[in-house]
Order: sequence, then structure tokens, then C-alpha cells
Amino acid sequence: MARDNDITFHTRKWVRPEDLNANGTLFGGSLLRWIDEEAAIYAIIQLGNGNAVTKYMSEINFVSSAQQGDLIEMGLRATAFGRTSLTMRAEVRNMFTRQSILTIEKIVFVNLGEDGVPAPHGYTEITYDRDRVPREHLPRTQNDA
Amino acid sequence: MARDNDITFHTRKWVRPEDLNANGTLFGGSLLRWIDEEAAIYAIIQLGNGNAVTKYMSEINFVSSAQQGDLIEMGLRATAFGRTSLTMRAEVRNMFTRQSILTIEKIVFVNLGEDGVPAPHGYTEITYDRDRVPREHLPRTQNDA
Amino acid sequence: MARDNDITFHTRKWVRPEDLNANGTLFGGSLLRWIDEEAAIYAIIQLGNGNAVTKYMSEINFVSSAQQGDLIEMGLRATAFGRTSLTMRAEVRNMFTRQSILTIEKIVFVNLGEDGVPAPHGYTEITYDRDRVPREHLPRTQNDA
Amino acid sequence: MARDNDITFHTRKWVRPEDLNANGTLFGGSLLRWIDEEAAIYAIIQLGNGNAVTKYMSEINFVSSAQQGDLIEMGLRATAFGRTSLTMRAEVRNMFTRQSILTIEKIVFVNLGEDGVPAPHGYTEITYDRDRVPREHLPRTQNDA
Amino acid sequence: MARDNDITFHTRKWVRPEDLNANGTLFGGSLLRWIDEEAAIYAIIQLGNGNAVTKYMSEINFVSSAQQGDLIEMGLRATAFGRTSLTMRAEVRNMFTRQSILTIEKIVFVNLGEDGVPAPHGYTEITYDRDRVPREHLPRTQNDA
Amino acid sequence: MARDNDITFHTRKWVRPEDLNANGTLFGGSLLRWIDEEAAIYAIIQLGNGNAVTKYMSEINFVSSAQQGDLIEMGLRATAFGRTSLTMRAEVRNMFTRQSILTIEKIVFVNLGEDGVPAPHGYTEITYDRDRVPREHLPRTQNDA
Repeated sequence: MARDNDITFHTRKWVRPEDLNANGTLFGGSLLRWIDEEAAIYAIIQLGNGNAVTKYMSEINFVSSAQQGDLIEMGLRATAFGRTSLTMRAEVRNMFTRQSILTIEKIVFVNLGEDGVPAPHGYTEITYDRDRVPREHLPRTQNDA
Repeated sequence: MARDNDITFHTRKWVRPEDLNANGTLFGGSLLRWIDEEAAIYAIIQLGNGNAVTKYMSEINFVSSAQQGDLIEMGLRATAFGRTSLTMRAEVRNMFTRQSILTIEKIVFVNLGEDGVPAPHGYTEITYDRDRVPREHLPRTQNDA
Repeated sequence: MARDNDITFHTRKWVRPEDLNANGTLFGGSLLRWIDEEAAIYAIIQLGNGNAVTKYMSEINFVSSAQQGDLIEMGLRATAFGRTSLTMRAEVRNMFTRQSILTIEKIVFVNLGEDGVPAPHGYTEITYDRDRVPREHLPRTQNDA
Repeated sequence: MARDNDITFHTRKWVRPEDLNANGTLFGGSLLRWIDEEAAIYAIIQLGNGNAVTKYMSEINFVSSAQQGDLIEMGLRATAFGRTSLTMRAEVRNMFTRQSILTIEKIVFVNLGEDGVPAPHGYTEITYDRDRVPREHLPRTQNDA
Repeated sequence: MARDNDITFHTRKWVRPEDLNANGTLFGGSLLRWIDEEAAIYAIIQLGNGNAVTKYMSEINFVSSAQQGDLIEMGLRATAFGRTSLTMRAEVRNMFTRQSILTIEKIVFVNLGEDGVPAPHGYTEITYDRDRVPREHLPRTQNDA
Repeated sequence: MARDNDITFHTRKWVRPEDLNANGTLFGGSLLRWIDEEAAIYAIIQLGNGNAVTKYMSEINFVSSAQQGDLIEMGLRATAFGRTSLTMRAEVRNMFTRQSILTIEKIVFVNLGEDGVPAPHGYTEITYDRDRVPREHLPRTQNDA
């Protein structure tokens, strides 16, 4: 059952000195930052709304690491569409060592409306296309940056 | 039962434009980066070894957020000492709104020896002092940065 | 005379490759950036106003440095409350070497009102609590970012 | 003639405040940084060598821009294999506006050997697989970082 | 014919670990980011308008590189004034090795008006003074950051 | 007495969103980081040694600020050559407002030898040329990054 293969890997990173922790291996914080950004991008494409925020992450096992010069790739796949939410499965892999770095079974994003509260997104199925990518941004509310 | 109060809050952040996501609220990836760095610092102080790495994080609920100009504080507390590992509880709070931003019940760090494999740390109890802070770094191995 | 002990040390940093100068020791510019941010946070907590700006720093002696992997802590203490200003004493320490990195006798922040000009803050004594942390931000003026 | 479709788009970016120029649109320098990193990653995968460097870029037309919150995707395609070099075509697109942001007809990377001088890579054809991704890094020479 | 000498070199960089690629030499993407920012600054000074954007860059040869600790300087010179555009010649040099790193024969910036479309700038000659530096910013339009 | 004019202004910055504090004005920490880097560059050019470190800064008055989009320039001038040290005067100016942002009467750098301890530099006079710029780096000691 090709479960891992269902994930689509898009964004790649080349581990540079600024991504290392003080021990010279990949900084866990950089890794988490990358996967959160990639999940946000994936959610926007699936929900057709730029205003979606991280709500939940299930447990994370850091099973292997990476060193300077390694290539990292991040993959995501929608696993459930709620009324106002989207659940995704995420995996980060080291292309050099061919090993999984971490897997997150559930990352949940919530779709927000103009008023900043959860709003129905109307989708029930994954898209493999760009048909939902928004063309416009919601007006930002006054207390935004 | 003052469970939350047992956590010691040290590092604080002032949310600046570079920490915002594209919607103008605190970027989840920045938040995860901050808490991972703070956990690493706490682990070094408890284990007396600069060579400790993130091994596991339990699930994360993002219960509230923050906006530009808010003050954030990060807290940690050792909850279990394994033979080669340390388990911590983490919380991030928004000082402006007085709300919890997220709580992570278990962050596990592993103590590494000179050869980069898990090594016993010899501690069984939390320290509230700096008695274990190392004075030297382990020699770094050849394939480090 | 426990003068140094009166300073409360909060924020900690783990010196990573991105914080190094070209000689492989802690970059002075990173250090100054960290202490300025920490002073801003401390001032906001004491003045109850997110709109406070750096006005003055007294001389700085860089008495020791730090290397990759060292832990740094930053401490501050209010030393004088003016009508529209706050004076603080700052110290940065290397937790690994147990040495002071630098001390700044006076950092002065000025409290600004809605119109961006100095405004009385109404405080005369230091707080060790969060009783003054604002719950709201002043409206930003038109020519802000 | 589906020329554009031949390019494979991998890495995506979500335009955040830190990527903006002082006018509030996407900073050209961030864009160039992103495409250079993506080209390096693509070259490593094609040449099977982590030690490849940018040698040449043909002219760049900035035909459209992006604003905060837009999604950007970067695409590359090998167009010629020299004895020690690889030539690629690059395109950056704005997923929100469906417009091309820029196209670079030729980006040339050179394959370096252990001594840091150009070395034959032995490939003549594009790979769509990971069969060439190296498992190890060349030893770095003494005067490297 | 002292063509190179006509370029005025202003901004300098000290190559730090965060500017390196994974091979320990200067990251091409950092270099391109630096020269684009410097060109924007030069264009603002020549056009008297903070709202100018990169439109075109001619081909770039990366003729030499730099390593950690080297000093880099960036130079620009206006070569042609169009009705709404400015053409510049750029060079980046390594002060340590005394070698040129790259030269860009043509960088074109376009002068934008309040509505974000190209607007005449009214200049036909280079200035060596600050007589055109604006004192105010154009009002930013609604959909800006 | 044209004292200010004696300072040579080289590096310029364009204030972008990532340089702002949470109030939307130029972050003091960014400013201090920029001037420290520029002083290091100036010291290397005067002392002919890449291994020079910040030792002392005299008091700093923040007399004016800057906002997003403003151009900043940094100037330095050697004012005294000690046996192992160099004293400089620094000024940062806002090119838009034509105002001084801050002045630092004395920034002292110390020249370090291969062993990392202060070493005589042999210079007694300022150079306006590049005659002292080193062509090589001192070997870095083992415990460096």
C-alpha cells in the first residue's frame, strides 16, 4: 500500500550554514518553520483562501537529521476536509540519505473569513490542480499589521 | 493545583514585521522555531551538555495567536529524566492578551556523546541553578559544519 | 554589595552559525541587536506602553566574547523613572564561561503618545509583576509601515 | 508548442513581510536569491555533486511582480549538458495572478571537483528521478568555512 | 580608458557564515540580493523617487567568488536616462583578492507614480550629489502591505 | 571647522519591513548591527587584518529615527591609532530627512594575532586607499566555528 507515495513533494531546501544549530546539524526550529510555511501554501491551494491559519499539529518524531549541504524536500497531502478546516499529512525527507526526517500525521488549518473567524470553505475533495488558487486577497482588518 | 505556575518563563520576544505571516498575524513557523531553540537551551542547562538534539514533540494546539507589537514569553519545565533523554513540558504565552498561545505536553531531547550517538547523562532531578552548564564544548566530528 | 544580582536575566540565546562574525566568534552586531530588543521588551513591561523607543545608551565595554554553541543571557533593571523616560542598566553574560560579556550602565527609553511625541507615563517605581503590560496597541499613525 | 510546460515547478514561497521592498511589493533581491538557490538544488540533482556553483545567468526581464500573501513557484529545466557544466532554463510564476514574474533562458552551473576546479560530470541527459543525488559530500578544503 | 573607474563604489559587505552556500563559498543568491538593493538605492538617489522598481538585468558572468571573511564592494553608475526609466552599469568586487566578482552591463529601473504605473522622472543627467533625494514618500496604495 | 565632513560615508541601507520595530519605525537593534558591521569593515581596511574585534563604544544618542523606505548611510573615520588598537568616530544619517540619526564619538577595535590575543598592527596614520587590505586570512584556531 503505497501510502508514502501519495504525498506530493514540492518545496526543496539546500541546508546552508544559517540553518544549522550550534552542533552543526540541521536546526529543528528551521525544519519546523519550513514545514509550517509549506503547509500554509498547500492549504491556500486547497481552500482557495489566503487567510488560513495553523490550528493543530499531531506528534512529531525526529527520526533522522541532516547536515550542511544536504537537500531536504517537504511533502503534504490533504487527508480530510471539515466544514471550516483542512487536515493534512506531512513528511520531510533527506534526499541525500534517502531517509525520512520527520512525519506529522495531522496538521489542521482553519479557513478564516473576512472578520477573522472560521468560515466554511465549501470543499470536500482534494484538488491536484490550481483551480482554487485565489486571485485576490481578503481585505485586511484594521488591527492587522 | 498550580501546574502552569511550575513552568519557568525565560525568553521573551517582541513580535516584529519579520515574524508575521502573510495575513499579518504571528507566523506559526516563527513560533515553532522560537520554542525549539528555547527547549534546546533548557536541555543544555539540565543535561550539562551542549550536544543535545530534539527527538520528539507531542501534539500542539494553537489556541490563540498574536499580532505585531505583542510580547510573547516561552516557558519550559523538565518532567522526566530518562537514561539518555530529557522530557520537558512547554508553554508559549501572549503577555498582552494574557492567553496561552500553545502548550506542548512532551518535548524529548536526547543527550549525545562525542561520537554523536545517545549517551547517558547521569541526572535524575531538575536543577534550578547553573551548576550543570558546561564550560567546554565536545570536539566536533569531521563531517560537521 | 549584590548590585549585579539585582538584575533579572530573562531572554537567552544559543549562539548559532548565523550569529558569528567572519572570525567565528559572536558578532558584536548580533549582540547589540539582542540587547536592544530585550531593553524594548523590559521598557514596555515597566511603562505599560508598546510605543517606547531607544533614546540613549551609555558607553559599552566588550569585556569577553562567546563562540558557537555558548549560551548567552540578557539582563535588565530599571534604575530611574523620569517623567516621560525610563533608565535601565543592562548586562549580557556568557553562561558557559560564567563571564560578563558587556555591561551598559544606562539605556534610556522614551515613552511616546499617540501622536509619536514624548508623553508622561505616570510611573515612579519598578514593577516585578505584569500589572502594567498593555492589553491594546495605540493606533498607528498614517505614515507608519 | 508546450515549451513552458516542460519546466518542472517545485519550490513555492508565500510572500511574507520580510520579502517586501520598501514599497510593499516583492523585493527583487529576494526573488533572485530564491531562484539561485532553486537552480543550485536542481543542478545538484542533475550532476550528482553537491559542489556546483553559479557561473552565468542570461538577461532577466521582470515582467510582473507580487504582493504580500501571493504564492510564488519556481521552475527549472536542464537544456544542455557540457563536459563540466549544466545549462538550465528558469521561470518564476505568481500563482495568484497566473502571470510569469520572470524568465531566465540560461543559467549555467559548473561542476567542481575536490580541488575546487571544474571537473567532468559524465552526464549528457536530463534525469527525472533521484538516481544521481549524491549520498556523500566531497571533503571540504582547508580554506573553506 | 578608465571605464571601471567611473563606477562609484559605496556599500560594502563582510562575508559572514550566513552568506555562505553549502560549500562554504559566497552564496550567489546573497550576492544578487545585495546588488539589487544597492541598485534600488542608487536609482532612488538619481530619480528622486522612492517608488522605483527593477525592470531588467542584462547577462551576469560570475567571474570569481569570495570566502568567509572577505570584503565585498558594490558599485553602480547611471548610463542612460529614459523618459520613465534609468539604466545603470553594476560591478561587484572582492577587496581581498582585488578581483571582479561580477559585472552587469545594464540594470534598468522604472520610475513609478502614485498609481503604481510608469511616470516621467524629468532627469537626463547623472547627479553626484544628494540634490534629488526625496524628503517624502508617495502615499502607498490600498493593496500595498 | 568641517569635522563632520571628514567622515567618509560608504554603506547605505534601504529601510525595508524586516528592519522595523513593532511600532513601524527603524528598529534600534538593526541600526546597531549595521554600524558594528561597517566599523569592522573600516577597521580591516585600516589595520590590514581581518581578525579585529569590537572592544569599546562610547555613548550613543539616538537623535532622530527613520521610517520604511528611507535611505540610511553609515560613515566612519579613524581618529587614533594605538599600538594594538584603532579608534574611530561613527555617524549614521538619514538621507531622506537630512538628519543625523546617531553619532558615536569612539568605537575601538583591537587587532588580534594568530593566537587570538592583541597584536601590534604597525600603523600610525589613516589610509584613504586599499593598500592595507589583506590578501589572505589568518589560519583559524581549532575552537573556532
